[in-house]
Amino acid sequence: MNAEIIAVGSEMLTPSRVDTNSLYLTGQLNNLGVEVVVKYVVGDDRDRLASTIRLAASHSEIVILSGGLGPTEDDVTRDALALAIERRQIFHPEIAEQIEQRFYKMGRRMVDNNKRQAFILEGAEILPNDRGTAPGQWVEDSGRVLMMLPGPPHELKAMFERQCLSRLGRIVPRQAIETLIFRVTGMGESDLDHIIAPVYKKYANPATTVLAHNGDIQVHLRARCNTKPEALALLAAVGGQIEALLGDRIYSRNGDSLEATVGEMLRKQRATIAVAESVTAGGLADRISSVAGASDYFVGGFITYARTAKTEMLGVDPELLQRYGPVSKEVAEAMALGARRRTNATYALALTGNAGPTTDGDQAPVGMVYIGLASPTGVISTHRQFLGDRPRIRAFAAQMSLDFLRRNLTS
Amino acid sequence: MNAEIIAVGSEMLTPSRVDTNSLYLTGQLNNLGVEVVVKYVVGDDRDRLASTIRLAASHSEIVILSGGLGPTEDDVTRDALALAIERRQIFHPEIAEQIEQRFYKMGRRMVDNNKRQAFILEGAEILPNDRGTAPGQWVEDSGRVLMMLPGPPHELKAMFERQCLSRLGRIVPRQAIETLIFRVTGMGESDLDHIIAPVYKKYANPATTVLAHNGDIQVHLRARCNTKPEALALLAAVGGQIEALLGDRIYSRNGDSLEATVGEMLRKQRATIAVAESVTAGGLADRISSVAGASDYFVGGFITYARTAKTEMLGVDPELLQRYGPVSKEVAEAMALGARRRTNATYALALTGNAGPTTDGDQAPVGMVYIGLASPTGVISTHRQFLGDRPRIRAFAAQMSLDFLRRNLTS
Repeated sequence: MNAEIIAVGSEMLTPSRVDTNSLYLTGQLNNLGVEVVVKYVVGDDRDRLASTIRLAASHSEIVILSGGLGPTEDDVTRDALALAIERRQIFHPEIAEQIEQRFYKMGRRMVDNNKRQAFILEGAEILPNDRGTAPGQWVEDSGRVLMMLPGPPHELKAMFERQCLSRLGRIVPRQAIETLIFRVTGMGESDLDHIIAPVYKKYANPATTVLAHNGDIQVHLRARCNTKPEALALLAAVGGQIEALLGDRIYSRNGDSLEATVGEMLRKQRATIAVAESVTAGGLADRISSVAGASDYFVGGFITYARTAKTEMLGVDPELLQRYGPVSKEVAEAMALGARRRTNATYALALTGNAGPTTDGDQAPVGMVYIGLASPTGVISTHRQFLGDRPRIRAFAAQMSLDFLRRNLTS
Repeated sequence: MNAEIIAVGSEMLTPSRVDTNSLYLTGQLNNLGVEVVVKYVVGDDRDRLASTIRLAASHSEIVILSGGLGPTEDDVTRDALALAIERRQIFHPEIAEQIEQRFYKMGRRMVDNNKRQAFILEGAEILPNDRGTAPGQWVEDSGRVLMMLPGPPHELKAMFERQCLSRLGRIVPRQAIETLIFRVTGMGESDLDHIIAPVYKKYANPATTVLAHNGDIQVHLRARCNTKPEALALLAAVGGQIEALLGDRIYSRNGDSLEATVGEMLRKQRATIAVAESVTAGGLADRISSVAGASDYFVGGFITYARTAKTEMLGVDPELLQRYGPVSKEVAEAMALGARRRTNATYALALTGNAGPTTDGDQAPVGMVYIGLASPTGVISTHRQFLGDRPRIRAFAAQMSLDFLRRNLTS
């Protein structure tokens, strides 16, 4: 079975925006054994969108539209689909009521144009949106399925997973598709590929994909077989070879993020963690606390951006700062010890570095980062010279510090 | 004049690849005053591509194809375009000769299927490729222009700039294009649209686009006129009306982010800022410090995730926590005062709230956030009930706290 994905919105036809919903949807569809054969981005023009929908539906059994379901005149997706497949739209007062309730809960009043969102194509199934006002719609027409989903990624993902997956499961021919995900850190993407390509290149099934972002690499193996045991056996055989090559650079086998993996290790040890951040300035704490339930092990910490803050908040000896500079092994270790002392956490992780774009006279070069880790048995540290711009250096530094913690929690 | 861009290649229909050539081409076309109205990614299927080309040519005067010009059977762009506009292809021995020479220079022998690249549509102009083997083609057909360009970005860019820009200059009417961006916060997207739509709907020129993300809204006005002064005057006239309606909810007129805008205000006042974060746990500090040069005004701060951390790090009275709960006006204000006292910053901004997914007995409901701001003149606070999931609540809370700071820096 084939699918086509149409992203709607003139803002995605500018030189700076890409449609990322289609990447998520492609992954989900591929998991069901459905191939995506054409993707479109269409501006807010009803007639042009309608002719695009007609073309897509003439090629493929599944057509997914994202975006253009909002309350404004610019939002033309409902009207375009109604035109393309010649269906009437019917006003559903109960949907208007739900939207009004949602506004009421936020202490706001619904303006009249939100009522546009309560029109549903005749014969369509309503896909409830628990994260926004625009409901989605699922329409079957001449043996084809057409879906309208909201544009904001968190709304689209929740709706697709809760409403569309099970419906698609009923119409897509059954295949056993199983996926194995290794999450890896502490090496570059090309190094990883160089190591594992000799294994995965031998197999068309499972299909292997390598994704890298800010020092975090995912290796996805997708096996398609007639039965689930066959697919799992294939994954175990090929996955086992890859696992042997990557060793402890694999930090999770279930899709969990690095912060969730480290959090789970802390929880099992009944340990707590505090942070002291200079170069990342909140980026590490933000990641640790993004995990639901992080309050079980995350105490909090210190953002010591100014040089004096390191002394005042963490008690770092000013002479140390003077002698070694703020970006140094000595200061990273003193920050970690200070944060641990002042919070009574089991572990304290400290970062100091220079993310650029400029470097002061007394500072380390742009991209230099030191990491300190204080624990019940003392303090250790490491450092690394990163390349790239400010956001990249900060993201890599947070990633590396979490990996440093992980490796020292296991040992 | 309108354009459509078709990227060809099944490898761009995977969950991890985006077509970036179209972003470059969109920027180049916009500079000429040409709008991109649809973008496509089509796999290596001749008939499907031919029908896509026909649809694109029925909408727009300019159609640009990228990729699929290689030597293999998978490369179907030439055949698809020939089919779509019903032109014969003619073998050009001199092109085959050039390709053979190119291989010879690299010390390699040309394999026979490279000859496929020497077929040119009848009546097409050849666009030489000095960075690869595949020549491009420029075809005019029924008042439309269709271009075939190579897929590798460095080949495509060089060919577009050297061969296509001057040809397009002859057929595209000369225009001046100017853009005005308002960045707005403190209101919902539909409320904003309700207020400004009566103005912008009156004008097809400038074209107005509204983009919203995590409580941050951008209003883009793009004017196309014969001369630059005319375009600027039009933007001033329409932009002025929108500005009057939005008032101080506009925080920047030059594209600057909220954190950059607030940072600039602090720098001008020679003031410094510290933070005390509970619910956002680093997300606010991460945004403030993401601005290059933030060390001029950002001191740092405290992440007080655990209840005891509020007392130990910020000196919040345990009785206050007991009586009002950690998510309260009283605690937000005490956190701000504590952070200011312990850092000597001019201002301290504090956040406490519940991002969910669960709520403890003594806690406020999921989504409730209190913000405290301590300054030389005392302490003030505000609160808000947000809806949505954990990442959304945290992002909105950080946004709202920056806006609270902004409004109190101006007054």
